[in-house]
Amino acid sequence: MNNYRLTLSYDGTKYNGWQRLGSTENTIQCKVETTLSRLLGQTIEVSASGRTDAGVHARRQVCSFRAETIVSCEELLKELRRYLPQDVGALDLSPAPPRFHARLNCTEKTYLYRIWNSETPNVFERNYLYIYSVPLDMEAMKAAATLLCGEHDFSAFTSAKQMKKSPVRRIDSIEIKRKGEEIQLFFTGNGFLYHMVRILTGTLLEVGAGKRKPAELPDILASHEREQAGFLAPAKGLILWDVQY
Amino acid sequence: MNNYRLTLSYDGTKYNGWQRLGSTENTIQCKVETTLSRLLGQTIEVSASGRTDAGVHARRQVCSFRAETIVSCEELLKELRRYLPQDVGALDLSPAPPRFHARLNCTEKTYLYRIWNSETPNVFERNYLYIYSVPLDMEAMKAAATLLCGEHDFSAFTSAKQMKKSPVRRIDSIEIKRKGEEIQLFFTGNGFLYHMVRILTGTLLEVGAGKRKPAELPDILASHEREQAGFLAPAKGLILWDVQY
Repeated sequence: MNNYRLTLSYDGTKYNGWQRLGSTENTIQCKVETTLSRLLGQTIEVSASGRTDAGVHARRQVCSFRAETIVSCEELLKELRRYLPQDVGALDLSPAPPRFHARLNCTEKTYLYRIWNSETPNVFERNYLYIYSVPLDMEAMKAAATLLCGEHDFSAFTSAKQMKKSPVRRIDSIEIKRKGEEIQLFFTGNGFLYHMVRILTGTLLEVGAGKRKPAELPDILASHEREQAGFLAPAKGLILWDVQY
Repeated sequence: MNNYRLTLSYDGTKYNGWQRLGSTENTIQCKVETTLSRLLGQTIEVSASGRTDAGVHARRQVCSFRAETIVSCEELLKELRRYLPQDVGALDLSPAPPRFHARLNCTEKTYLYRIWNSETPNVFERNYLYIYSVPLDMEAMKAAATLLCGEHDFSAFTSAKQMKKSPVRRIDSIEIKRKGEEIQLFFTGNGFLYHMVRILTGTLLEVGAGKRKPAELPDILASHEREQAGFLAPAKGLILWDVQY
């Protein structure tokens, strides 16, 4: 068996997230596994760097899978581009070292959350932007973001009810940029809990809108209580930007 | 009756073009007229700067319509943003001089044709790009574009069979830019015949791919024969960029 590394890009609008579920076929994992299995004439299981939720997009999602080789990576990449649905794109395919595993070896991830901070409609990117047209205090958001960086117990920032594993994660940076009417939040860290980026975004938006003060963030972190943090920002604005190994 | 100027943006993917047709309701004009008529409680007819074909988009399409005033432009704009479909956006609404007519007064239009010149998929902009992954000679395309500028009889560059009106148009500029893997063609002129921008694009792509020489263009223009020009580039890559008055 050989090991492969596959990089994908997808528009998650129509999908029920990355992960194959019992009966639901409408997941990105299912589309990719079905296509690979058919092309290679063998059952293929694909591991991604992490799940993305329903409606969340990926600019670069890294996956790994094992298979008996049949064709070259170049040929298989061409076939994948031909047979995958239009909203799932194969960016790259290469042989990987035998022990490479897309989830286990991932060291850092970057997510982008895109906010359309305007009342003027943006029809072309409507599926990738969360419309939040309230004026935002960018300096307050940046001050709050600084307080979230570093290693913390992020229990207050997840929808996961019972944590089997540690809720401690390290955020390396949160970059906040304005690009015309769009506000972009880039989150880079060693891992993110279930819904964590979207709750961080909701909380930062509440700070930007003046509903909370940056100084409240250490208390929210210390509370470990979901109710103390801000709202869950919608899936459509979230995109897995990049994955590091 | 008052006269109004409405600026729209639309993703034409799902529509049968701008113009309301006998039985088809799936046109942008129909959506806008229905929404305006309901909001204002009177029958509203909307004129655009020009038709766009099925699948063609508009970044800025200017329209005019007459109505008895009921609410302020500000209020009506808000309502339009609320009730128009998600792929049709109302950018601006203002009172217009009594004789303003979006089509008759239009002096210049700019169209953008977007080409994805790569084999790497672009899932996020797939509905707005024509994939043409052959390597392109940009200098040859620019040389050919220069020969198309100016006032010409563009009969060779239209799908219209019988011209009731003059086939003479003036192209003021054709700008060709590369932005990473994307090639953008901006066409500015005093008007464009049916399918003209798409046939100009197809012809320029054939020049870029080495199938034709720039020097052939004067002969193609002089022939007045559709068969002499290049292929009709698909609608999805075309966007009405701006309209001047």
